[in-house]
Amino acid sequence: MSSAVWEFKDRCAVSGIGNTKFSRNSGVSELVMAVEASRAAIRDAGLQSNDIDGIVRNDADRVTHNAIADSLGISDLKYWGVASAGGSAVPSMVGQAVGALLSGQATNVLVYRSLNGRSGTRFGLSRAAAGSGDAPTVVGGQGTLDEYFQPYGLLSAGTFYAMLAQRHMAEFGTTSEQLGAIAMECRIRAHANPNAMMAGRELSLSDYMAGRMLSSPLRLFDYCLETDGACALVVTTTERAADSPAGPVLIRAVAQGMGPGIQAGRMNTTLMRETYTTWPSAYAAKTLYERAGLGPEDIDVAQLYDCFTITVLIQLEDYGFCKKGEGGPFAESGALGLGGSLPINTGGGHLSEGYIHGLNHVVEGVRQIRGSSTSQVPNAEVCLVTGASPPATGALIFRRAS
Amino acid sequence: MSSAVWEFKDRCAVSGIGNTKFSRNSGVSELVMAVEASRAAIRDAGLQSNDIDGIVRNDADRVTHNAIADSLGISDLKYWGVASAGGSAVPSMVGQAVGALLSGQATNVLVYRSLNGRSGTRFGLSRAAAGSGDAPTVVGGQGTLDEYFQPYGLLSAGTFYAMLAQRHMAEFGTTSEQLGAIAMECRIRAHANPNAMMAGRELSLSDYMAGRMLSSPLRLFDYCLETDGACALVVTTTERAADSPAGPVLIRAVAQGMGPGIQAGRMNTTLMRETYTTWPSAYAAKTLYERAGLGPEDIDVAQLYDCFTITVLIQLEDYGFCKKGEGGPFAESGALGLGGSLPINTGGGHLSEGYIHGLNHVVEGVRQIRGSSTSQVPNAEVCLVTGASPPATGALIFRRAS
Repeated sequence: MSSAVWEFKDRCAVSGIGNTKFSRNSGVSELVMAVEASRAAIRDAGLQSNDIDGIVRNDADRVTHNAIADSLGISDLKYWGVASAGGSAVPSMVGQAVGALLSGQATNVLVYRSLNGRSGTRFGLSRAAAGSGDAPTVVGGQGTLDEYFQPYGLLSAGTFYAMLAQRHMAEFGTTSEQLGAIAMECRIRAHANPNAMMAGRELSLSDYMAGRMLSSPLRLFDYCLETDGACALVVTTTERAADSPAGPVLIRAVAQGMGPGIQAGRMNTTLMRETYTTWPSAYAAKTLYERAGLGPEDIDVAQLYDCFTITVLIQLEDYGFCKKGEGGPFAESGALGLGGSLPINTGGGHLSEGYIHGLNHVVEGVRQIRGSSTSQVPNAEVCLVTGASPPATGALIFRRAS
Repeated sequence: MSSAVWEFKDRCAVSGIGNTKFSRNSGVSELVMAVEASRAAIRDAGLQSNDIDGIVRNDADRVTHNAIADSLGISDLKYWGVASAGGSAVPSMVGQAVGALLSGQATNVLVYRSLNGRSGTRFGLSRAAAGSGDAPTVVGGQGTLDEYFQPYGLLSAGTFYAMLAQRHMAEFGTTSEQLGAIAMECRIRAHANPNAMMAGRELSLSDYMAGRMLSSPLRLFDYCLETDGACALVVTTTERAADSPAGPVLIRAVAQGMGPGIQAGRMNTTLMRETYTTWPSAYAAKTLYERAGLGPEDIDVAQLYDCFTITVLIQLEDYGFCKKGEGGPFAESGALGLGGSLPINTGGGHLSEGYIHGLNHVVEGVRQIRGSSTSQVPNAEVCLVTGASPPATGALIFRRAS
């Protein structure tokens, strides 16, 4: 494969999407939600459960391929695989499905993510505080390197992203108000989305600034939500998707990116790289645009992974929407609004719709291309969807069939 | 894709293989061994580390894609993914690599498995006895169903496979002597292999029968070894592999199989199926042979996953080398020997070479097609390699380039 030309553009497509209600307490198991979202996606694709012969799941999901296949009544599953790690891997779940499809190992691939992220295991807490009962993660010699971080208080995602934000502020003069602009845009999109957890809850800049400081410089509203819920999609060949009720949403390109010097699959080791204001997303972006034959100027709307506001800001730079260091002014400029040059996170994102670990961004990306978003970008033809960046990431571009 | 015709036969190939020494105490970390085996495979393929742009790992491996990429000095990894679960997924690691290659997401994919299976976490013990510190695995509502098994003593793989063996004996009259024939054949192959842990240690039928009963009817020598070690391979397109020093070993076909009624990704739930003397391997076999355009009669040599002797015996039936129920007489007939109709596990297998969770079988399969095995089957052209079967499995067929 020449990296400059990718012959598989638009060869696969999403034919169905589904999701559950997003809440703070689902009252049901993650398996029940995974099945509900999957059945909705399969129905949306105009298929029966037994038409599914491939499954790609996320390594952070507790619902196994066996469990969901059995619950759906799939009798002869022919492909399954796992994308890693967690929120960085969600577009890569679609990428792996593309591999299974284009190598003839499956014909309709189900992708899902289900979590009781508020009533069950909470991502926002350290493992100890979450009481998950997991073994300590200090594993010398296996490359996880936590022993260099945990004793100094880097116990959760927030403490780690806070350091990245501090560094970006120090290097480029980025301000809290600029981070707040991202939080507010996501909140405005949530007001239009009845399924968004924060629909109807206003967020002004003064509300944002008054949010309690959780890990300096990150305040309450720099953090994403904790959510119980599930999303799912069906990925197939573009040819087969042509028969689906809503028609195909083309997968223009997929890419993963890591770059050098990331010693382990944990986010904290990103702090050991030469720079930590340029992320693996810059590597994914380069490959993605090359494969797609498109550039940032072609993107009509983007769903940018937003575990924290700073995550969005740095991706604006890494994906080439502005120069390195200019993410703050760009975010503050109004560009991210529905009438701006790059509307983002049109369902409300992780910051205000719900945190389905990236997969609600993929589902919302499909809606934009179908023209069915609650914050529809007029005539959207090309949508970027990204995963969490450190310690490595994936991204994809959806395109409207012409 | 029509299931009867697979257009991707022989399109990908293995270009390099590598392994460490197999021992009871490596004295080094799993990362160090993974790097050693990977470097050997990359060198064998005639490549440099930075030529690797894809990695598929096993979900049971503690060495992350980030860790090994960093240790090898790979600066721009473009694909990574995980195959699941454990020993059932090893041929599927190759299958996922095929997907990445044929969808243009990578050009040279590294596959590895590294474990300190004797000096570190021991598979043969229950989680509690292994002292791994893991949380109890009883997780109601998530589909793992362990709560129905653990209280009755199904705590480790041996206790579970013992029930499958008991059932096969009850249904078909299978005998301990027939299981012993499998153990002895593997041991004979090990004597020729200087890297085999059991090279030089004789095993007669009376030795086998005198082995202590660990979980009736399985005795000591029905169990595979516990091993510290690593294996690796490089998978690429057949076109690119043509330039490798040893030449391409063609991947004729890959397949995964599960079948209905397997509620969770754990082996014990196999006991909840209608039958448990026909395994998911029967589903993998059907798909594999269809895709390959070959049948059991075309297989010159097989590397059959052998966590226990019974695992081999049931696969002999599921992969169509004899009828269901006739695995015992077939194993006892001499067919599995080097001069027989189906020589198996020519490196000594998990029973006598070492337990690298299936990947040493893949490496040995490549050696057979290259003509470089220590127990070479003369003129071997087609080799079957299988993964552990319950709760789901994968398999592949290697073929010699003509």
